[in-house]
Amino acid sequence: MAVSPPACPHRLLPLSLGLFQGVLLLFFALFVTYDEPAVQAEDASVVANQLYSIFPLFQDIQVMLVVGLGLLLTFLPRYGLSVLTHNFLLLNFSTQWALVLQGLLHRFHHGQVHLDLHNLLAAEFAAVTVLISVGAVLGRTSPCQLLVVATCEVPVYLASEWAIVTRLGVLDVGGTITIHVFSCYFGLGVSRALFGAVRWPVHPKETPTPRSDLMSLVGTLILWVFWPSFVAVLCQPGDAQHRAILNTLLAMSASALTTVVASSLLERDGKLSPGDLQNALTLGSLSAMVCVLGFRFLTPFLARKLLLQDQCGIHNLHGLPGILGAAASAVAILAASEDTSRSQVSHTRGNASEAAWRQWGDSGAGGQALCQVAGLAVAVGGSLVTGLLTGAALRLPCLAQPPERLCLDDSLYFKMMDQAGSQGPGSTAEEEVLALKEQV
Amino acid sequence: MAVSPPACPHRLLPLSLGLFQGVLLLFFALFVTYDEPAVQAEDASVVANQLYSIFPLFQDIQVMLVVGLGLLLTFLPRYGLSVLTHNFLLLNFSTQWALVLQGLLHRFHHGQVHLDLHNLLAAEFAAVTVLISVGAVLGRTSPCQLLVVATCEVPVYLASEWAIVTRLGVLDVGGTITIHVFSCYFGLGVSRALFGAVRWPVHPKETPTPRSDLMSLVGTLILWVFWPSFVAVLCQPGDAQHRAILNTLLAMSASALTTVVASSLLERDGKLSPGDLQNALTLGSLSAMVCVLGFRFLTPFLARKLLLQDQCGIHNLHGLPGILGAAASAVAILAASEDTSRSQVSHTRGNASEAAWRQWGDSGAGGQALCQVAGLAVAVGGSLVTGLLTGAALRLPCLAQPPERLCLDDSLYFKMMDQAGSQGPGSTAEEEVLALKEQV
Amino acid sequence: MAVSPPACPHRLLPLSLGLFQGVLLLFFALFVTYDEPAVQAEDASVVANQLYSIFPLFQDIQVMLVVGLGLLLTFLPRYGLSVLTHNFLLLNFSTQWALVLQGLLHRFHHGQVHLDLHNLLAAEFAAVTVLISVGAVLGRTSPCQLLVVATCEVPVYLASEWAIVTRLGVLDVGGTITIHVFSCYFGLGVSRALFGAVRWPVHPKETPTPRSDLMSLVGTLILWVFWPSFVAVLCQPGDAQHRAILNTLLAMSASALTTVVASSLLERDGKLSPGDLQNALTLGSLSAMVCVLGFRFLTPFLARKLLLQDQCGIHNLHGLPGILGAAASAVAILAASEDTSRSQVSHTRGNASEAAWRQWGDSGAGGQALCQVAGLAVAVGGSLVTGLLTGAALRLPCLAQPPERLCLDDSLYFKMMDQAGSQGPGSTAEEEVLALKEQV
Repeated sequence: MAVSPPACPHRLLPLSLGLFQGVLLLFFALFVTYDEPAVQAEDASVVANQLYSIFPLFQDIQVMLVVGLGLLLTFLPRYGLSVLTHNFLLLNFSTQWALVLQGLLHRFHHGQVHLDLHNLLAAEFAAVTVLISVGAVLGRTSPCQLLVVATCEVPVYLASEWAIVTRLGVLDVGGTITIHVFSCYFGLGVSRALFGAVRWPVHPKETPTPRSDLMSLVGTLILWVFWPSFVAVLCQPGDAQHRAILNTLLAMSASALTTVVASSLLERDGKLSPGDLQNALTLGSLSAMVCVLGFRFLTPFLARKLLLQDQCGIHNLHGLPGILGAAASAVAILAASEDTSRSQVSHTRGNASEAAWRQWGDSGAGGQALCQVAGLAVAVGGSLVTGLLTGAALRLPCLAQPPERLCLDDSLYFKMMDQAGSQGPGSTAEEEVLALKEQV
Repeated sequence: MAVSPPACPHRLLPLSLGLFQGVLLLFFALFVTYDEPAVQAEDASVVANQLYSIFPLFQDIQVMLVVGLGLLLTFLPRYGLSVLTHNFLLLNFSTQWALVLQGLLHRFHHGQVHLDLHNLLAAEFAAVTVLISVGAVLGRTSPCQLLVVATCEVPVYLASEWAIVTRLGVLDVGGTITIHVFSCYFGLGVSRALFGAVRWPVHPKETPTPRSDLMSLVGTLILWVFWPSFVAVLCQPGDAQHRAILNTLLAMSASALTTVVASSLLERDGKLSPGDLQNALTLGSLSAMVCVLGFRFLTPFLARKLLLQDQCGIHNLHGLPGILGAAASAVAILAASEDTSRSQVSHTRGNASEAAWRQWGDSGAGGQALCQVAGLAVAVGGSLVTGLLTGAALRLPCLAQPPERLCLDDSLYFKMMDQAGSQGPGSTAEEEVLALKEQV
Repeated sequence: MAVSPPACPHRLLPLSLGLFQGVLLLFFALFVTYDEPAVQAEDASVVANQLYSIFPLFQDIQVMLVVGLGLLLTFLPRYGLSVLTHNFLLLNFSTQWALVLQGLLHRFHHGQVHLDLHNLLAAEFAAVTVLISVGAVLGRTSPCQLLVVATCEVPVYLASEWAIVTRLGVLDVGGTITIHVFSCYFGLGVSRALFGAVRWPVHPKETPTPRSDLMSLVGTLILWVFWPSFVAVLCQPGDAQHRAILNTLLAMSASALTTVVASSLLERDGKLSPGDLQNALTLGSLSAMVCVLGFRFLTPFLARKLLLQDQCGIHNLHGLPGILGAAASAVAILAASEDTSRSQVSHTRGNASEAAWRQWGDSGAGGQALCQVAGLAVAVGGSLVTGLLTGAALRLPCLAQPPERLCLDDSLYFKMMDQAGSQGPGSTAEEEVLALKEQV
């Protein structure tokens, strides 16, 4: 007996996805070309060297997003197949969608879009914002709803990044503002508009088991290991990249110890909470403290007062540390202007901000610091508004939001051959539907 | 109480393996040397650069074969330790065996075999064919039988690759014909000759649990992530490699969406089947469609009509998409000859086919397209015949094929300390033997 | 109801860790600087090339230590979260601690410590010795005790490495003596002094389940795959690194087959033991034999006669093969002096030993071989003595050693939300404490 949420148009997901893929193939066939081939031998060697410098980093990021983030999300014990698949589907859909939009927006030379690994990487970063945002509504949304979020968020992200980095000239190499802050508040906006001010009780299938916690911890550790690649890939090759790697390694190592300290101090009996570890290890030392404190005090407060649903705690994980990082960047710019000469600073900056620095460099460090703050405000405001609108769109009945009772269960989206191995809390969605019918 | 399949010579596996390893050590001691050391400083830098360009790709492929493929095969819930170990054993045995054969066949200069990472990589690709082929008979064969398959398949593969690529001059950079098509029909031949036309009922231990499906999905995602390395490592460095990576990334991303579309459309209620995802994500968009359709319609047909056992569905995963790819390569060559000049095409081809192209280039694109088809026919015919012979050899009683009743259970090959954690369907092989004895 | 080992000062761990992190931040702020930035364009390209040559290897080693080793240790079915977390905590603490000590000891030029990836890597190797040593006392020690081990072992390791490599001029590229032998006997010393001559019965939570064996095997395979990076990273770039990679790959492949041979021959019914595989696959062919024999005959002997606790069998895994490797290095030096000219040998040696070779080269190969043996003696003797002292220090009551009854259970260190998923042997530590209280 199959479970089908009421009024669910079974064919909407495959048909819209198939249409999207078809249009995309047409777009690629008509407009996309490779970069020009290198004609001479020395050029070929240069191309090969550039490839070897970026491809391992690119693969590291693929491992992070597909395997690491996927496993991290399997803390829901009966929803593992679904989160792995939805995460994978969203990553691929959003990357392709961002590739098309980028091509249309930025790279129309001579009627052709040129494609290389850097374009793919930029598109993958757009997809990262979607993966972060949907963390707020994980487990209670249908694949159709998730694809609508991706469809709306990718263009908004591209516009917001253009406004913040290109127009305002904000220095944001690690994506603190444009990725982490933006995606957090977009996700919270979606959650608010979608679920409104309803107070959910704890779902019986929401409680992690030791085994799902273990898988989730393995995912966290994979993310932790490859984090330096994520930061380095956006820097200029050479010294800037070397420093970014060293800084990230040290910050992460410090955050690991700080997380243990903070988590252990907050518990009455000094025990650790697996949730703290899973969520905090990836950000720096001070961020770790902010993050743990946020999980302990802010999340319950938000849930109680604002009735805001944030399944994966993206506010503590991306929002607060992102705001902290943006504030720190403003302070660092003011401090750097006092004790550092112009030429030294320029070594550590990325390519995209080079022009911006020249523009703002004359009006002084104060102007640049103001810019950082303005960029933060644009990211928070823009993402909240568009997130709320997207969340409102998700309430369309044709998007088949699953009823709360059937949420968080793989059997809603997968043919489960055998239920014997999953003797977790509660019964399966299928069984519940059968039981409901028998009562009637 | 230990379980031993009747007439099983316990010492055959270790003794024959030990003998093989001893002979191999002797061979290496007598005949193998390293490449000449670089004498000058510039040479050393070139050697280092070559190493850095191939070693990360080599490591990626090792991760794919050892961890990714191993986990993918753990969908049998009570046979996980065995598949991981047998996969690992076969990979190592086949690589060493291919290294010896390659050395003997191709590289005897001055009485010495020269060894470098490229040789190792070529040997590893020979091992890949074995790992694919045994997918057809997974779980119902003993380690001795698997090693016999490897012993027979590696030399046949080397001969077939020599005939197809070197003699016929087929362009086959990704190994579509020489690896995927060849290994598929070799495996199906083995299966047919070994199991004959017996109709198996579904074994109670064959049904995946949600947890084994999850592990298998993680393995699939690992394979998916590193697939571009697998394709790129065989290309010329520079532009060809860059394009191969981009093409593979796009094809895989499209296949991911297409798989969801196809799998979802075929289900009455729009749910996904974990099996489709595990098996289809790794091949391109059209291949994904062929693959899903094959699993839904062709596998049951083959199982019903031909009584052909194909445990991992290698026919849909490697055979059909391989034939599709070979046909596409013939069409692409015809198309390329019309709108592309000679010099441009040569940028995208691998080293091994360079001579072949010169040979066939004069007789025109039509000749080359015919060659592609001839290569496909050689691969299918040769592999089927030799596979059938190998399968017949596997029926030797000294190879200790496990009886169907005891199949698919780790306790057949591992001392299980504790059975408490594996409360899957059915009891353990040991318990069954005990129960059988008590009845007597 | 929370479980607290008697007299456990809950705040000791977070407070001492927090203090350490604070002092470290101060140290970094005051004394540490980056390497000089490259001023010219050619230099920048050289810097970038050096980064790309070491960073992928560095990432591989991070994956090994964080994910591979962590998963390997999860063979204790109810202690997975704890071993993953303790391993991760120790790695970060020890690396930072080694970084500080290295900075203080070796790199004080002009009042500033210069930091680059090579320093981080050297610090990580110091951390590896800690991770190996604590294998002897895994599961029966508190985090506070583990941190004390790390605090003591890192400076002793640095001193021992200085004595063996710099003073004695021992050639030890793979860290056979300075890492594996040293850490093994340090760990055994700690175990002896901490647990004394008490004979432990098998703890009910010590028995692996098939599922924990599977996770552990996956960890082993990850370690196996990345082992060549671990060896190569310490070699000179170019030929030496290429050969180190080839040698390691071949040795590991041979060890894989040899392990199956040895494990299978030792079993009455030819079955494999998962423990043998998990522990032996990572070392060479002869080492594999030594290692399996050690597990079968030496571990029970040591446990019975010396009453020595060695939870992870580090003696068979690191001690015996390390001594074997050190002996082999002495023999190889004597052999090499006969048939190899001076200039050829120098290609395969690392940087650190270059000076040493010149020093000892004149006194001949015999002198160098003697040195290797002397280095081995220093490593064994020094590590045993300091290990015993450290183990004695661990008996301080404020370090909160958990009572045997409550060992090997995640609920001692983690808030477990739900016990339903972990129906392993025995009940949880919390339940036992409750049961004890009810009896009173």
